Amino acid sequence: MKPTHIEHLGIAVNSLEESIPFFENVLGLSCYAVEEVAEQKVKTAFFMVGQTKIELLESTDPEGPIGKFLESKGQGVHHVAFAVEGLQGYLDSLSEQGIRLIDKTPRKGAEGLNIAFLHPKSTCGVLMELCEHPKA
Amino acid sequence: MKPTHIEHLGIAVNSLEESIPFFENVLGLSCYAVEEVAEQKVKTAFFMVGQTKIELLESTDPEGPIGKFLESKGQGVHHVAFAVEGLQGYLDSLSEQGIRLIDKTPRKGAEGLNIAFLHPKSTCGVLMELCEHPKA
Repeated sequence: MKPTHIEHLGIAVNSLEESIPFFENVLGLSCYAVEEVAEQKVKTAFFMVGQTKIELLESTDPEGPIGKFLESKGQGVHHVAFAVEGLQGYLDSLSEQGIRLIDKTPRKGAEGLNIAFLHPKSTCGVLMELCEHPKA
Repeated sequence: MKPTHIEHLGIAVNSLEESIPFFENVLGLSCYAVEEVAEQKVKTAFFMVGQTKIELLESTDPEGPIGKFLESKGQGVHHVAFAVEGLQGYLDSLSEQGIRLIDKTPRKGAEGLNIAFLHPKSTCGVLMELCEHPKA
């Protein structure tokens, strides 16, 4: 089992209003979606570059996960999401290897993907997500 | 002008010896190169996932750029490198837009790529690199 590609990078930013123009006008990427995810206490903006999405994350609550990240580390890459096939089998295998999982079974993420987060204590300090497209 | 894909992610880690087995045995990626870059005061290890390389960066000197990053932020994504075509034109255009550049003209990076870093003060707090394959 290995990931096929990096599905997305989650980047914590202070303000979508300030960051979207940078990614659009400076890097030349197109923002194709903006949405609020109330459960995660964030507003998000999406860009595509090659195989990978860039997901900008603005906090809507200082007590939420992105609010806390910005408070302790400042703006920067918050998580790296790998695309895999056979997500549940992957998670079972990681669990057997003693890797700490935030999600032991997949849950629904943005765009209908099945997703699971690994615990950064087990992943060299980088919060990692595994994603799988649901079967058609 | 827009980047074609994410060429690599640079991830600062405390120890290659501890991190390489995670990326190999847990994620299932193959480490295809390990090298020391004395000028940057780092040891690096490379993995490929889809279009994107993962470059692990271990500091060899606490006063080097990765040593300072680890001291202030801990392990995590240190920089994001975008593949572009027409790097010098890209840099000139960024400069005209008032974007702060660390490198105003390309220099040689790993694997013979032409590279330039943008200043994180201008790029939403994420250190960004632009890379171009040299013309054959």
